Amino acid sequence: MSAVISPLAPKHIPDLPPIAGIRMATAAAGIRYTGRTDVLLALFDEGTTAAGVFTRSKCPSAPVEWCRARIKYGKARALLVNAGNANAFTGRKGRTATRLTAALAAKAAGCKPDEVFLASTGVIGEPLDVGKFAAVMDDLRACAAPGRFLEAAQAIMTTDTFPKVATARAVIGGTNVVINGIAKGAGMIAPDMATLLSFVFTDAAIAAPALHAMLKDSVADTFNAITVDGDTSTSDTLMLFATGKSGAPRIAKAADPRLRSFRWALRQVVARLAELVVRDGEGARKLVEVTVEGAVSRASARRIALSIANSPLVKTAIAGEDANWGRVVMAVGKAGEPADRDKLSIWFGDVRVAHRGERDPNYDEARVTAVMRKPEIALKVALGLGKGRDRILTCDLTKEYVTINGDYRS
Amino acid sequence: MSAVISPLAPKHIPDLPPIAGIRMATAAAGIRYTGRTDVLLALFDEGTTAAGVFTRSKCPSAPVEWCRARIKYGKARALLVNAGNANAFTGRKGRTATRLTAALAAKAAGCKPDEVFLASTGVIGEPLDVGKFAAVMDDLRACAAPGRFLEAAQAIMTTDTFPKVATARAVIGGTNVVINGIAKGAGMIAPDMATLLSFVFTDAAIAAPALHAMLKDSVADTFNAITVDGDTSTSDTLMLFATGKSGAPRIAKAADPRLRSFRWALRQVVARLAELVVRDGEGARKLVEVTVEGAVSRASARRIALSIANSPLVKTAIAGEDANWGRVVMAVGKAGEPADRDKLSIWFGDVRVAHRGERDPNYDEARVTAVMRKPEIALKVALGLGKGRDRILTCDLTKEYVTINGDYRS
Repeated sequence: MSAVISPLAPKHIPDLPPIAGIRMATAAAGIRYTGRTDVLLALFDEGTTAAGVFTRSKCPSAPVEWCRARIKYGKARALLVNAGNANAFTGRKGRTATRLTAALAAKAAGCKPDEVFLASTGVIGEPLDVGKFAAVMDDLRACAAPGRFLEAAQAIMTTDTFPKVATARAVIGGTNVVINGIAKGAGMIAPDMATLLSFVFTDAAIAAPALHAMLKDSVADTFNAITVDGDTSTSDTLMLFATGKSGAPRIAKAADPRLRSFRWALRQVVARLAELVVRDGEGARKLVEVTVEGAVSRASARRIALSIANSPLVKTAIAGEDANWGRVVMAVGKAGEPADRDKLSIWFGDVRVAHRGERDPNYDEARVTAVMRKPEIALKVALGLGKGRDRILTCDLTKEYVTINGDYRS
Repeated sequence: MSAVISPLAPKHIPDLPPIAGIRMATAAAGIRYTGRTDVLLALFDEGTTAAGVFTRSKCPSAPVEWCRARIKYGKARALLVNAGNANAFTGRKGRTATRLTAALAAKAAGCKPDEVFLASTGVIGEPLDVGKFAAVMDDLRACAAPGRFLEAAQAIMTTDTFPKVATARAVIGGTNVVINGIAKGAGMIAPDMATLLSFVFTDAAIAAPALHAMLKDSVADTFNAITVDGDTSTSDTLMLFATGKSGAPRIAKAADPRLRSFRWALRQVVARLAELVVRDGEGARKLVEVTVEGAVSRASARRIALSIANSPLVKTAIAGEDANWGRVVMAVGKAGEPADRDKLSIWFGDVRVAHRGERDPNYDEARVTAVMRKPEIALKVALGLGKGRDRILTCDLTKEYVTINGDYRS
């Protein structure tokens, strides 16, 4: 947590309604931080289904391996999350720690360890002390209560400067259901499955395979379409829990037309959480939407958009409020995708700065400077080759990013 | 050019001997900078052969297109280079500018335009004013003299903080030959053929195809094995000119055993220039050699080394003198190459910090801190899977990089 809140933080934090079948508690276990909560326990009523997507890192954290091995059963009774220590690259000790913490949570929830899901975020490579969980588990169980989503979002923060929450309503078979989500992000943010930790909860009654299909669909244009620094965490986790306590009919298949409203609302929640992660990118001062159109395919548009969004030279130029479109050309050129310099056009906001491979004949420095001074900047590249289009959300690269990451561990 | 010289600059700049058949001159044409030289003209005697490798960017500069179209003839009489304007993404105007400047240089050299090579570095997207060259061309021709390699290296600098030169001697058929090289680098440095501008000169007599083969070979582990920011310039150019005036026998084929000494010396010069480019990486305070061994193949080792060397989180940690090997694990994990977390070992300098997927049992913070405080840091990762090994040179990511690139254009 930082004393200085991101200038891109939302002005308004929505109220998240309680969700039937979920109780939560947070505690200050002192895993790394002092004077703040750092552990979250969520308890789910019996019958809760679960789905998850995880990092594609070849060196995942121990909790990711724990969850991946159990998500196939599709049943959840407890979620235990901690901040301050990622329990990643901790070898046999790490695996032992997940087994022991899951056993503690299972006892608290009155369930099997296989119905407990774990997530850890923070420093990599330090052994995680299970005793810290043992010391607070009784309190967590005793205090668990409905609601508390904002407190939950606060307990899982690391270098985040504000808690990230989102909520939406949907209708299934004439009955209202709620979807609440929380996330934490800040650094090591690149699109490769879910990004760091995010948990979404609903009182809808949906079978686990259908949940999984919808969750996976929701990620492609949200969590997988954001980047802060191009670095992919060993712990990226996005999970969705459905208690089934809304009274809405139980849905077995993702293709069921009654899920239309739910699918849309889920996408809204996940998209909002992904955007909040970028808005709290380490050191971020500008939110940048990179759109590439006219590519030979959508995949090609995405690769070019990522090349732009991950370019340190583009990101530092934006930090300096400099409409340096030459660096955008450079990033298009290095992406390795089909591009024809002489067909390229580039916009910052609504100002076209380059057209068909040259500076726009009506280039107006004053107009583009006004665009660059805004906290939110749209950058568009038209390749003029085909119909492929995609967009990526990112932020600028500032001295604060370097400061934050130059002395995070020490 | 910067007032503050990189702390990684070499203590000693070697004297570069003149090379028979080459005369050089520099001038202050005021293309962008004032109070410094910004144009280099090199004139080659008749019979000079040439080879070149160029950026793989899909949006190359106009001079790169000019050179690529002519290098196949393998003959050079003049090289004209300017700093301050890259003549990239300048459309038809850019092509016209290359044609006109080549004509000017051809007139000065008394040769055909097809024997003139051009290179431009600096801002992208601004039209290049041919009049600037016209105004200094007579003086350049009149003043051209043997030697002057250091002045040449100075004239092509942009954000470089020191001129980059290297020299070596070789023997061909019992006769001594000289190889001199100059380079400019600083930003937009990533391994994709040659990196920004570098020119190598020799008085050896070698046919163009053999020159090309040796130049290409020399790049793989030198210019293509360095990265400052992962950004690839639209102008990357490395050229080699051989005047044949040494009196050494003329060599037709790269496989000729008489080229052994020359090949080795060429590699020394090119490797030194590549290292100097990293030592002058924008904002660099640490030179970092990333070695990956035990990968399934050499290509896999390179991709993992690049993932580490380009990771903003690894680079900022090194800037902060923090032996944050957890981020190295992260970078290994995101490379997408075969890796087994539980076989991974990591060293900073001679201190093993992680062994077989866990913090080293003998981990000694004081010893590793001493390593991190040095200006040159060796980072080694052993994967324990195979025999693939490779190394990449890079630098740290500092606040100065952000400062330099946040207000370069304005």
